[in-house]
Amino acid sequence: MRFAACAAGIRYPGRTDLLLVLFDPGTSVAGVLTRSKTASAPVEWCRARLDHGMARALVVNSGNANAFTGKRGREAVKLTAEAAAKAADCLEADVYIASTGVIGEPLDPAKFTFLLAELAEKARPDGVDQAALAIMTTDTYPKLATGQAKIDGVTVTINGIAKGAGMIAPDMATMLAFLFTDAAIEPAPLREILVAAADESFNAITIDGDTSTSDTVLLFATGAAASRGAPRIGLAHDPRLAGFRAALTEVMRDLAHQVVKDGEGATKFVTIRVTGAESAGAARMIARSIANSPLVKTAIAGEDPNWGRIVMAVGKAGEAADRDRLSIAFGDIRVATDGEVDPSYREEFGAAHMKKAEIDITVDVGVGRGSATVWTCDLTHGYIAINADYRS
Amino acid sequence: MRFAACAAGIRYPGRTDLLLVLFDPGTSVAGVLTRSKTASAPVEWCRARLDHGMARALVVNSGNANAFTGKRGREAVKLTAEAAAKAADCLEADVYIASTGVIGEPLDPAKFTFLLAELAEKARPDGVDQAALAIMTTDTYPKLATGQAKIDGVTVTINGIAKGAGMIAPDMATMLAFLFTDAAIEPAPLREILVAAADESFNAITIDGDTSTSDTVLLFATGAAASRGAPRIGLAHDPRLAGFRAALTEVMRDLAHQVVKDGEGATKFVTIRVTGAESAGAARMIARSIANSPLVKTAIAGEDPNWGRIVMAVGKAGEAADRDRLSIAFGDIRVATDGEVDPSYREEFGAAHMKKAEIDITVDVGVGRGSATVWTCDLTHGYIAINADYRS
Repeated sequence: MRFAACAAGIRYPGRTDLLLVLFDPGTSVAGVLTRSKTASAPVEWCRARLDHGMARALVVNSGNANAFTGKRGREAVKLTAEAAAKAADCLEADVYIASTGVIGEPLDPAKFTFLLAELAEKARPDGVDQAALAIMTTDTYPKLATGQAKIDGVTVTINGIAKGAGMIAPDMATMLAFLFTDAAIEPAPLREILVAAADESFNAITIDGDTSTSDTVLLFATGAAASRGAPRIGLAHDPRLAGFRAALTEVMRDLAHQVVKDGEGATKFVTIRVTGAESAGAARMIARSIANSPLVKTAIAGEDPNWGRIVMAVGKAGEAADRDRLSIAFGDIRVATDGEVDPSYREEFGAAHMKKAEIDITVDVGVGRGSATVWTCDLTHGYIAINADYRS
Repeated sequence: MRFAACAAGIRYPGRTDLLLVLFDPGTSVAGVLTRSKTASAPVEWCRARLDHGMARALVVNSGNANAFTGKRGREAVKLTAEAAAKAADCLEADVYIASTGVIGEPLDPAKFTFLLAELAEKARPDGVDQAALAIMTTDTYPKLATGQAKIDGVTVTINGIAKGAGMIAPDMATMLAFLFTDAAIEPAPLREILVAAADESFNAITIDGDTSTSDTVLLFATGAAASRGAPRIGLAHDPRLAGFRAALTEVMRDLAHQVVKDGEGATKFVTIRVTGAESAGAARMIARSIANSPLVKTAIAGEDPNWGRIVMAVGKAGEAADRDRLSIAFGDIRVATDGEVDPSYREEFGAAHMKKAEIDITVDVGVGRGSATVWTCDLTHGYIAINADYRS
């Protein structure tokens, strides 16, 4: 696995905006892509290629999302894949592409395809830090995480990089994450493991409830650890994968939390845990309803322990909840119990918790055993400043 | 129909916070109530009474929503109904109650129930303007609308009042609206007409996507016009109701628009029209997704014609949309056609439209014939200031 990046001047001059990653033959890949009905051309390209699950190259550009660009967008992706396949000496079908940046402007591949051969030549194995920098747009820091696990006694490594929802120009915020491991895992089980880990990490965060046309998470497994005796895993329920699953989830959760903490205008990191729901899915819906509520998010920004707004957000989620058995806690502080304010609760206890940088909200909705956790940030003047205080 | 209001000091001294409306025997009532799963005690009271559909009294208080108040909340409603029934010389079951204000604090009915007899004595027929003032909390203006229609040649009148989503203290924003007509319509058809009109008015607006525990719309039909020869209508599909339906929808839409224009921090009134969806319901979902998107709302606040964010919001709605047939217009300006920026579009055209106080966004999603309109406002520093710049 080798990395190289450069400044191609796709939108801004002098900013690193092109990343190439090359993989050895035999590398498996799995992906989780945006559910948007207006997905970008690169997302559609990846969706079609992920079926066969093998990868030799990854091309990422920032500055232009190549979204809502019609037929020209599809052609740009095709030309990029052609050039990358030539540079990597592989099939076009083994090239994966992700783009982030402005929507609705044609992406001219001639601006950067001629650079791919040179990037392939200078690509180096120890370039993951550089790759994390290369995919940044207006993130305030590069996002990296690493973990290790044993598969049948052999240590494998997982490295991950991500870019999040930070944008100064009014481009779409897009979440991109790439995970790299030397484990030897077939595409089918790799996909199952990735989807499960995404549910507990990137699919459990929200900044403002908006969904990009370009969100892309790709996990590449080179299988290099096989040379040190790691078995090649063909089934997702293979018990030897337990440690790997846990380590992957941990790396992805770490990256997901970094994305939330770097959310636009964010000043608080908020963990919302919902228990007692009809199902895990219902708990997730209620937690998301709380996490995405502008009234809850502004209350947190104002360090206001306004638990009435949490009651409101539970109610609007549309999932079963027993108002008269509802309980709410801020950290260890019991705020409401069985549908009424807790007798022990004092406003100053809640206010003290709200002053922290990390806020924990737990809600039991009193109807079942489903639970879920969602992470989010507050809604501040900073968010408005980044997204509204601009004239095009 | 007679109105009276006073300052009972429920939360703040010297602010009119209690309204009593008395109806003559034979008055029908229909209601549309919040779908919240954590609805307030007064909402539950109304829901149970609306089945029989007859009304003699309406009591509205502000300052305390009597929501998330458990058993004590239900007792407070019961005591209020008892006192109002005594004052109006009617059955408890004919009393309707609505409350708005802080959540989770017990409402002490002893603070105001002793005032109801006196209010009943001084209630006057010409008090609808006073009633509109009485239900205001932090609305910046009273919301009234009036209309007339002919039923079988006899003119009937519809008066409506509403309070909206303006709050300076961090109380729940609640939408209350009350409509009064002298038409003679039975409860069952009255309900059908109200639900249909609400779909085209109060259910087609959104400030921030949050749903109050207390939203209440009640329509009272006294039947007084029968003395002038108006027929008593027993069936919703009676063709003589056509004019009344239209007039009621118009009055409710007028009030709904007033609520949006007085939305927290709002500087723009935004009309979002979606066409070409699979169904009217799908069109409504897509329009709401656009209307509730923080990225769209902040772009409008910034007068930024950022149509890429509209593409994003269409995509995240989850309803069928053909990305490559999508069209977007700002007013008469074609922005995007068939999935690409329109050849005639110039950024300055969009920017000029965004400078207006009233913004019109039309989106055709290219898959069917379903259409819907939703009204909303922008998301500004004012919203954050109202909801976050506060310490309890």
